[in-house]
Amino acid sequence: MAADGNPLIDDREVEFLLHEVLAVERLLELPIFADHDRETFAHAIDAARRLAREALWPAYKLFDLEPPRLEGGKLFAHPRMRELWQQMVGLGLIAATRPAEVGGQQLPLAVYALASAYLMAANCAAYGYLGLTQGAAHLLEAFGDERLRRDYMAPMYEGKWSGTMALTEPQAGSSLSDVQTLAEPTADGHFLLRGNKIFISAGDHDLTENIVHMTLARIAGAPAGIKGVSLFCVPKRRLERGALVDNDVSVAGAIHKIGWRGLPSLALSYGERGDCHGYLVGEPHKGISYMFQMMNEARLMVGLNGVGTASAAYHEALAYARTRPQGRALTARDPRAPQVPIVDHADVRRMLLRQKAIIEGALTLLVRTGYYADLSHHATDAAERERAQLLLDLLTPIAKSFPAEKGYEANALAVQIHGGYGYSSEYPVESYLRDQKLNSIHEGTTGIQAMDLLGRRAVAGGGAALRAFGQEVSRTVDRARAAGLPAEWGEAVSRAVAQAGALTLELAQRGAAGDPEGMMAHAADYLELFSTLAIAWQWLELAAAAAERRARGHADAAFIEGKLAAAQYWLATELPRCDHLAHLCRSGESSYVAVSPAAL
Amino acid sequence: MAADGNPLIDDREVEFLLHEVLAVERLLELPIFADHDRETFAHAIDAARRLAREALWPAYKLFDLEPPRLEGGKLFAHPRMRELWQQMVGLGLIAATRPAEVGGQQLPLAVYALASAYLMAANCAAYGYLGLTQGAAHLLEAFGDERLRRDYMAPMYEGKWSGTMALTEPQAGSSLSDVQTLAEPTADGHFLLRGNKIFISAGDHDLTENIVHMTLARIAGAPAGIKGVSLFCVPKRRLERGALVDNDVSVAGAIHKIGWRGLPSLALSYGERGDCHGYLVGEPHKGISYMFQMMNEARLMVGLNGVGTASAAYHEALAYARTRPQGRALTARDPRAPQVPIVDHADVRRMLLRQKAIIEGALTLLVRTGYYADLSHHATDAAERERAQLLLDLLTPIAKSFPAEKGYEANALAVQIHGGYGYSSEYPVESYLRDQKLNSIHEGTTGIQAMDLLGRRAVAGGGAALRAFGQEVSRTVDRARAAGLPAEWGEAVSRAVAQAGALTLELAQRGAAGDPEGMMAHAADYLELFSTLAIAWQWLELAAAAAERRARGHADAAFIEGKLAAAQYWLATELPRCDHLAHLCRSGESSYVAVSPAAL
Repeated sequence: MAADGNPLIDDREVEFLLHEVLAVERLLELPIFADHDRETFAHAIDAARRLAREALWPAYKLFDLEPPRLEGGKLFAHPRMRELWQQMVGLGLIAATRPAEVGGQQLPLAVYALASAYLMAANCAAYGYLGLTQGAAHLLEAFGDERLRRDYMAPMYEGKWSGTMALTEPQAGSSLSDVQTLAEPTADGHFLLRGNKIFISAGDHDLTENIVHMTLARIAGAPAGIKGVSLFCVPKRRLERGALVDNDVSVAGAIHKIGWRGLPSLALSYGERGDCHGYLVGEPHKGISYMFQMMNEARLMVGLNGVGTASAAYHEALAYARTRPQGRALTARDPRAPQVPIVDHADVRRMLLRQKAIIEGALTLLVRTGYYADLSHHATDAAERERAQLLLDLLTPIAKSFPAEKGYEANALAVQIHGGYGYSSEYPVESYLRDQKLNSIHEGTTGIQAMDLLGRRAVAGGGAALRAFGQEVSRTVDRARAAGLPAEWGEAVSRAVAQAGALTLELAQRGAAGDPEGMMAHAADYLELFSTLAIAWQWLELAAAAAERRARGHADAAFIEGKLAAAQYWLATELPRCDHLAHLCRSGESSYVAVSPAAL
Repeated sequence: MAADGNPLIDDREVEFLLHEVLAVERLLELPIFADHDRETFAHAIDAARRLAREALWPAYKLFDLEPPRLEGGKLFAHPRMRELWQQMVGLGLIAATRPAEVGGQQLPLAVYALASAYLMAANCAAYGYLGLTQGAAHLLEAFGDERLRRDYMAPMYEGKWSGTMALTEPQAGSSLSDVQTLAEPTADGHFLLRGNKIFISAGDHDLTENIVHMTLARIAGAPAGIKGVSLFCVPKRRLERGALVDNDVSVAGAIHKIGWRGLPSLALSYGERGDCHGYLVGEPHKGISYMFQMMNEARLMVGLNGVGTASAAYHEALAYARTRPQGRALTARDPRAPQVPIVDHADVRRMLLRQKAIIEGALTLLVRTGYYADLSHHATDAAERERAQLLLDLLTPIAKSFPAEKGYEANALAVQIHGGYGYSSEYPVESYLRDQKLNSIHEGTTGIQAMDLLGRRAVAGGGAALRAFGQEVSRTVDRARAAGLPAEWGEAVSRAVAQAGALTLELAQRGAAGDPEGMMAHAADYLELFSTLAIAWQWLELAAAAAERRARGHADAAFIEGKLAAAQYWLATELPRCDHLAHLCRSGESSYVAVSPAAL
């Protein structure tokens, strides 16, 4: 437990997920994970959990109140951040999932997901420095040449240096094909960069002696659009004959974010003095495709952040609801009777169970998706890798956007449960609400996720992705039946899967018939439908595992009851919405589709 | 237009609502409004609108950034607030709806609602000082004796002094029956008060020489519970022989609210020196019933605030979406083509049309509810007054909670449309999002509104309230048919009304049969159902009026198109949800109802 008792994430949940719901130990059969066992998994998670509770969480409010300072063009992180950085580095978190040859621990993503969820729940800003470094180093590992890996990747994985993702420009946010930062080739092999980046998280700070900006830019003369964008390694200070030399990347300004306030978001200016060296990563003009190949994992991290941010607030709300006395039972007649804790009011339990259903459903989906990522890379059988990749691709937009959107709703409910106290900065639920809002925006807005899901991923492999999805769900339906759950639970989920499949086919045909706008008009409803279904699937699995526990006579009856109640809640309250959403997609309901901008 | 072009509320909307949708001029036939005409209505609204745009809105961001200071136990409002206070007072806003005999303008609430919506949209904190003073003075007008009206009400209506509502205590928020502040009678007729109040908005400041706290307290020896709470007038400085004397009300602390930051929220301590005089208002032990009698109007004001707060952000998002270039059409093939404004993307129009449907639907409901309030007080026919009172009572919980809940969603969409920029404090949409969150909490949480609607108001008069509601809607259905709207629109609304009626009867019977908990378990779903229906009704009316405009060959085709599109959106997208919500209420879906607190 953290000092004040907030567990951030329920430890019982983690055990349950890993070993009963998803049986992650099946990964131990893969060669890459051969040196691991249940204990090393537990150890990795426990170390992160303790760091989260004992170090990151106690600094959370501080970071929100005292954001980094920009002085004389230099950015100073919160003084406490230096210690947290060292502690996170000390646990080997940056390269945790990477191979031993680059200094990694070869930990499955499914396991790391749970470890990192604690850290993000405790302090998303603090984790941000680490997550960005991880992503930047991984890009060099995957696409950089040997020199870049040695000179720039290695110090990042060691935590000596940190990294950023420098994609966005003022005119190129969702539309990365409009990147304008220019890279002029030189005779020496490097490029000279000139341009402006914005919203660069951890774009400058004093935690590490160097910062490596993985930068999208356009080589002079490159084709317009997405096929002319290249990826560059652009350090803050470049290596020249073993020494670090200023590389002409300057801070043009700081954005005052409304959350994640411990993590600076900066505008950067490249090459103001004409001396900003960039090193091409991989081949020219392939920058966007490289980013895309790394995008699934980055998006899972955002999803985990969404879950963590909602979970920490849920535990605050739960503790508050159990202890705050207010009001009496509807049937109470004696005004002198003591007030009851508000958790005794059905409507407060409604808000809590809704949060629980969102958070635990999403966490299950994320760990499952991480599991598919592990298989997609490391399964020994090529067909299994391919199938896992399809599932990973299919579920990623949901695993990214659902925790962001419904997590935000969960965070708002945590505030609501606190009443006026929740509306004050004396309680942490309000800052968690602010933190959460970013997750529907960065790493592809919810609108982008919806287009990606319907336009690419759900139709991938000529239906193969959806078939694999259907098979996975039907395995869960079998398990639920065997566990003795009500037959109608599995039937409702199966029906929704069949409906989603038929709908996808119909929409794909509309696109193929030359009407992509008709196909995509209700992408948001399609995403909502598929998300609702995907979470219903998780709850069916969670309920099945809980029922198995009950059948074994497991001691924690309250835990089992909570799982069954949340499953029932989602299946009875949310899943039925799929019919209406499918109808909207299918009918192409025309109101906002057809309305002219002037009429708004 | 405000300096930067944000209209806050669309002027065309106001005209349309007053004279075509609701035909508020029918109120001119009532004796109380005899001195008014269309021009005086227009003048009142226009004066408020100009003040909102020219003075309140330019100070909005400033107030958010520089909240009032608490120094040496004294609270200092933002220096700009003094001028705004004088300007609002100068327009006679405090007593605008009150009778001439107390210095009022006898303006219908339906008209004042629109005037005040501009002010709240511009700067909710600035309006807060005024709104609270209005409420406090009105309480004295309604229930105070002649001395209290002369000494304390009159200076508030004049704007010389200000007022507060001092209800909440640390242990008594939603549960006002648990108020503990003690009032000891004295031989001199006044009471000596001792106790602590919290979350007192505008509880101290330097804008006026005196502040009158309308305070709930318990007379020594009073019965426990709701029947032992009395209402007191407790000034900051009391009048003694014509002079103002400190009355021993001190500031115990300030709450750091996350929005409405220009309006201080304070903890007050009464009678630390044993010298806090309170003057009983009305009869002993009737405090709660007095508050209840004033509550409808206070809740309509919160609803208007919700609409205004969502509307200002909507207009920001709309302007941004029309000018921000990003991306290209799905069918575009040339990456060198210029980017299109994001309003060209269907998903952005979806977010905008949803905001529009929420905001304009809610504003219509509020003005309509204000209209019923006017009739309930001033209709010459007693039966009409009674019927209007039933409708006012029925609709108030919806008019309060819908703008708070769905308005919050609208505000989040306004942030989403701004992307990363919306997540920064450089743009105003994020602070509007923070402001909005309070509206689901103060003046009765959404949970309280739900209980109030189902437990009291929907079952009032043995079904008379619902019958009156059904008659009103059916008048709209007739109008829609006559205007040539699709027949299925009216049919869908009629069906939903019938369903809501049958559901209410069934739930009421459950309550009458001794199962109040079964009746109330899904009060939140019931509120959502009734709100969705009430807004569908407004959209049917708005669409009918728009179709009538079209038939008359009105020039503003875009305005008419927008109305019809938003109506279609609400009727096709939201109204069908009522079936599922009714099912949840009827079945008593047991997940959160039955779950034990330990299982959460």
